[in-house]
Amino acid sequence: MIGGGPGAFIGDVHRMAARLDGEITLVGGVFGRDEGKSRAQGAELHLDPARIYPDYNSLLKSEAALSPTERMDFISIVTPNHLHFPVAAAALSKGFAVLSDKPATLDLEEAILLQEIVEKTGGLYGLTQTYLGYPMVRQARYMVANGDLGKVRRITVDYPQGWLYRDLEKSGNRQAAWRTTPETSGISGCFSDIGTHAHSLVEYISGDQMHSVCAALNSVGAGRLLDDDGAVLFRMAGGAEGSLSASQICAGADNGLMIRIYGEKASLSWLQQRPDQLLFTPQGAPQQVWVAGTDKGYLCAAARRSCRLPAGHPEGYIEAFANIYRDFAASLRGDVLDEPPVGIKEGVRGMAFVASVIANHQASEKWTEIKLCR
Amino acid sequence: MIGGGPGAFIGDVHRMAARLDGEITLVGGVFGRDEGKSRAQGAELHLDPARIYPDYNSLLKSEAALSPTERMDFISIVTPNHLHFPVAAAALSKGFAVLSDKPATLDLEEAILLQEIVEKTGGLYGLTQTYLGYPMVRQARYMVANGDLGKVRRITVDYPQGWLYRDLEKSGNRQAAWRTTPETSGISGCFSDIGTHAHSLVEYISGDQMHSVCAALNSVGAGRLLDDDGAVLFRMAGGAEGSLSASQICAGADNGLMIRIYGEKASLSWLQQRPDQLLFTPQGAPQQVWVAGTDKGYLCAAARRSCRLPAGHPEGYIEAFANIYRDFAASLRGDVLDEPPVGIKEGVRGMAFVASVIANHQASEKWTEIKLCR
Amino acid sequence: MIGGGPGAFIGDVHRMAARLDGEITLVGGVFGRDEGKSRAQGAELHLDPARIYPDYNSLLKSEAALSPTERMDFISIVTPNHLHFPVAAAALSKGFAVLSDKPATLDLEEAILLQEIVEKTGGLYGLTQTYLGYPMVRQARYMVANGDLGKVRRITVDYPQGWLYRDLEKSGNRQAAWRTTPETSGISGCFSDIGTHAHSLVEYISGDQMHSVCAALNSVGAGRLLDDDGAVLFRMAGGAEGSLSASQICAGADNGLMIRIYGEKASLSWLQQRPDQLLFTPQGAPQQVWVAGTDKGYLCAAARRSCRLPAGHPEGYIEAFANIYRDFAASLRGDVLDEPPVGIKEGVRGMAFVASVIANHQASEKWTEIKLCR
Amino acid sequence: MIGGGPGAFIGDVHRMAARLDGEITLVGGVFGRDEGKSRAQGAELHLDPARIYPDYNSLLKSEAALSPTERMDFISIVTPNHLHFPVAAAALSKGFAVLSDKPATLDLEEAILLQEIVEKTGGLYGLTQTYLGYPMVRQARYMVANGDLGKVRRITVDYPQGWLYRDLEKSGNRQAAWRTTPETSGISGCFSDIGTHAHSLVEYISGDQMHSVCAALNSVGAGRLLDDDGAVLFRMAGGAEGSLSASQICAGADNGLMIRIYGEKASLSWLQQRPDQLLFTPQGAPQQVWVAGTDKGYLCAAARRSCRLPAGHPEGYIEAFANIYRDFAASLRGDVLDEPPVGIKEGVRGMAFVASVIANHQASEKWTEIKLCR
Repeated sequence: MIGGGPGAFIGDVHRMAARLDGEITLVGGVFGRDEGKSRAQGAELHLDPARIYPDYNSLLKSEAALSPTERMDFISIVTPNHLHFPVAAAALSKGFAVLSDKPATLDLEEAILLQEIVEKTGGLYGLTQTYLGYPMVRQARYMVANGDLGKVRRITVDYPQGWLYRDLEKSGNRQAAWRTTPETSGISGCFSDIGTHAHSLVEYISGDQMHSVCAALNSVGAGRLLDDDGAVLFRMAGGAEGSLSASQICAGADNGLMIRIYGEKASLSWLQQRPDQLLFTPQGAPQQVWVAGTDKGYLCAAARRSCRLPAGHPEGYIEAFANIYRDFAASLRGDVLDEPPVGIKEGVRGMAFVASVIANHQASEKWTEIKLCR
Repeated sequence: MIGGGPGAFIGDVHRMAARLDGEITLVGGVFGRDEGKSRAQGAELHLDPARIYPDYNSLLKSEAALSPTERMDFISIVTPNHLHFPVAAAALSKGFAVLSDKPATLDLEEAILLQEIVEKTGGLYGLTQTYLGYPMVRQARYMVANGDLGKVRRITVDYPQGWLYRDLEKSGNRQAAWRTTPETSGISGCFSDIGTHAHSLVEYISGDQMHSVCAALNSVGAGRLLDDDGAVLFRMAGGAEGSLSASQICAGADNGLMIRIYGEKASLSWLQQRPDQLLFTPQGAPQQVWVAGTDKGYLCAAARRSCRLPAGHPEGYIEAFANIYRDFAASLRGDVLDEPPVGIKEGVRGMAFVASVIANHQASEKWTEIKLCR
Repeated sequence: MIGGGPGAFIGDVHRMAARLDGEITLVGGVFGRDEGKSRAQGAELHLDPARIYPDYNSLLKSEAALSPTERMDFISIVTPNHLHFPVAAAALSKGFAVLSDKPATLDLEEAILLQEIVEKTGGLYGLTQTYLGYPMVRQARYMVANGDLGKVRRITVDYPQGWLYRDLEKSGNRQAAWRTTPETSGISGCFSDIGTHAHSLVEYISGDQMHSVCAALNSVGAGRLLDDDGAVLFRMAGGAEGSLSASQICAGADNGLMIRIYGEKASLSWLQQRPDQLLFTPQGAPQQVWVAGTDKGYLCAAARRSCRLPAGHPEGYIEAFANIYRDFAASLRGDVLDEPPVGIKEGVRGMAFVASVIANHQASEKWTEIKLCR
Repeated sequence: MIGGGPGAFIGDVHRMAARLDGEITLVGGVFGRDEGKSRAQGAELHLDPARIYPDYNSLLKSEAALSPTERMDFISIVTPNHLHFPVAAAALSKGFAVLSDKPATLDLEEAILLQEIVEKTGGLYGLTQTYLGYPMVRQARYMVANGDLGKVRRITVDYPQGWLYRDLEKSGNRQAAWRTTPETSGISGCFSDIGTHAHSLVEYISGDQMHSVCAALNSVGAGRLLDDDGAVLFRMAGGAEGSLSASQICAGADNGLMIRIYGEKASLSWLQQRPDQLLFTPQGAPQQVWVAGTDKGYLCAAARRSCRLPAGHPEGYIEAFANIYRDFAASLRGDVLDEPPVGIKEGVRGMAFVASVIANHQASEKWTEIKLCR
């Protein structure tokens, strides 16, 4: 693991997710640039001190030198955005599989480069788009693909957060600091951090690609250089239209990601804060509350295998994350899943979305096309 | 009453709303162009046949000729949009007060004309923007004005309906027919019909004016000439930004009007399908569920006097509508309310919103200003 | 109308309910024992002063002396409980139909007497068991009768209120005063007032009769002579078992009536504070949210004709009450409804329930049978 | 670990819970009576085959013979009920700490014996009363103790499940089989299995003890010897009264555990299927939605340290279970927690509850005291 030292948020999540199913063991890492802190973190995790490395290059080199049975199987990247590309590129080049936190890279150019490296090396690359690990998100994708909604007409996705409602980055909040800084976050703040989650949810569930965007962003926090709020109108390649709002300055909001998809026959609604439920409403018939659970025979295979417990025993964010780890581990073992794990292709699309949103925001034209549609 | 014959929807609502509090008595009307049907409707309503008139001109003339104690006090207009202006203009000119269904007129030009007539005649003109009659919408307005949210930053309003999900207008549905026809609906379908509700809710609760819009509309139903779906990004004069989606082709949706307002200190959320609740979420404190009820001492005066029952005894759409009638009747009697009823000023703003949305939709520029800000 | 003077609660509800559909006109009444206040109430209601009477006997006598076209068609009784019987008995004996607030009488003996009078006079007697007027309660009854749940196994009904959480009766609250006084309320406080609502809901939806009860009641408010809180285990004649709690001292609760019915194939859940929804959950399939609305073709006839608006336009407590008035008026006109209005039979059963609950509460035996099962 | 072989439910939950925080490592076990299956399970868990034992006696003996650094620190018991006592007794006697699934034992006599053994050996004994591991349950306990509700008046707890809605035990369902069999489940089925959860929640949150019960149970499933459904009235030592229903034959229900506690000033409501929310409703003020999250500074210490993520990132059943494991591990290390883990005292009370419920059910007297209050 690269990143995830003391004070980090997502590193702990990755570790819990990796542990949950007992299939993955963390063997070493670089838990930050400060070697002392990194070693302290390693000790807290009961790791062999010999496998706490000063930097990612030495980690890759040392691990590569180990015997196949000792050597790590893959590397998890849980750093701020600017390190995603160099670490992933180096690891793939050394023959290691990579599971990276999102967004894939700092910018679109890096993402395209990384895609080339993935293709060239043939390595396995996974992207932890957390929300795609939820069973009911997988069920939603299945139902759209299955035609249960008919042709999709409108998609509404909102992602309000409130934690950056004031300039916490000025008072020592590390999470706030790197996310509001261009060098570590890239050309976008909020849209890079959580807009990409909303975008990936739209493309994943609809099974369609976003064709073009019309964006209006804001930097509300005093002195912020990057967006911390905004909304986007979008058009899908398949003809549906939608709106997407994402914000980190909505005081009072926790992590209220919500998506609604309306088709010609029915609609779907999913709220991340109540993740075990998927609302399916056919025109002219009662709304149906589809719920997650190993005992729910009506779920599709991808949803059902993403549950660990019978319905009514809530599973949440860590379990969704663990599904991504479990699927990645299965792919690494060579298993063929009902759908391949999210990878570099989705990573590139996410960065293209961010690039187009920022470009459109700065332009006076109404629409900007998202290039790189397959 | 003008309009509201057999098969109409809103006429019945107006009549129930007018009756509820026992302060208003319907005395006559023109219930459609077909005199036979109009008379049948009058008979069903137990009205004096002498006061069922062949057209609105004869109604106005005959009623004006009655003695002050017999004469009607005001006229309700519940026709399709194209008749709102001529009837209102004629009634005001004859010295009658007018309570009109929304939108105020067929287009912005008529609305401006009507405003001049209202000002010139000094007559009382009310607009039944239904949702502004709900107690908790009034409470929301109060809380924003009171500074409970701090400066407003983002507004999200969605108004999904599904009933026009297919071309019902081709199979004899009268409601569908006039709402999808330019001659009776104006330059817009969905945005004239329900977009104006969403717009009025934004301006009413925020106490601010919408400054400019960026719109993407659709005509999904086969052969439709007017929009039946769309979304808008908007900027408020006070600096907040937002998104508004309105659709009548979202299969599965009933009447899901929802608004969320995020400020620098707290947020508000209101869902029309659960109208007695207003969710108030201060940053860093538990969400609060404010509920309607005569026994809720924490409500503002405008909200509390808009309730008829203690909390836990749900009041709904008809009661909200009845609040508008009751306030209008009170104004007619000369009472001074905590806030004046919605009138022609709001009617003009609604039509300006529609005009700007349609203009922007047809343009390639990103933003179109809504003229006529006070 | 007898009762419903200034400061009363349910009198206003009856009047709004009667007005809503424009089929019923209030023509006179006795609005309390103080003739001055009664006359003031009559004036506020724009009634003919000649039809404001000093007491119910003079009202009945005078109205009976009017010509059939002038004479009132029926009488509404909205007094405290102790007057329900004498007024109803007198009115029926004079040939007037009666629509009475619940409970039917002060005690079981009176209820049996009243049943005899109803049968002897052949008069129409209706009981305003409010919650049975809700469309989705009628739908629930239909679904149970239709076998959608299979055999009913367990029924859970809770009715928490908080308004009597302290001794308001000592500080001038009229509602609290008569409801906590044996002379005006009878042998029970809470179970007479709202326990009877819960009981009627159980019998109405299940289509079954409560066979026996096991009760534990409390008088929490200082100095109260009657129960203000309690819970009951019960057995239905058809074999289902259940629990029923009712309380008026549950601080924080508004009017949280909720019922859940579990069968061998599916369950139903209905919450009065969200009355337009009925949750139907088949074993092994997604939960279904059935909603009220004139446009919901899947509803049964009784539910659908109890709606005035399309789904998504909330109707509430007053509309439910108005359904009872409308059905009663239809019966008075001789219409045959899909199910007869709630009447004296249900009134007797309600009083038998109260009598059995109080008897069991005072006994040490576990079960007390509710006599008078058909 | 003893128990938790292929096809078991709770064994997997224990293992995931133990793994989640990286503090506990499973080192060996007896995964069922069939040694082949047990060994297969051990292999799947990547355990050292030398530490897969044929039975619990040999496990205890062999582990005790290991050096202190190699030896297991504690034993998890996840078998059917009848083995809880013998395994726990043997392990404690050998000096091992015990973490046992609930209920503590097969019957009250065993529970008392076990309490004596715990006291005599001074060993650490923990009971996985899952629902007490949820952050918001801990918060609820704190708020009651803190006086936020005033004196508690009424407690309503419902626990509907539907999975035993028919006789699955006859068609090879192992979970159904042992839970409906007296030899493995004890004198009660449903009340032993989930009634004890409801009971523990009542006593834990209220901080009070259940004094007496009045019970009506059923065996709905064809041929069942033990209760699979029932309801109980209860009185708390502190004077509050309540009702508790628990059922496993409520078709349509998943795992709908819900508790509501009403005091003289406010009420609390918690629904296990939405575990991150605790509803707090003060009389006369808006309801408050308290939510779980590391960032919620308003939570008490016990609740806050039971969260792993900021609010809006749902944690669920496994996380609650993991809290019990984490607290147990902390106690084992000698940490002093804000409250001691649930142990044998609560185990005895649970068995006394079951014994009293069954005794009362079979009696004609209304109330049966729960002996062994503190």
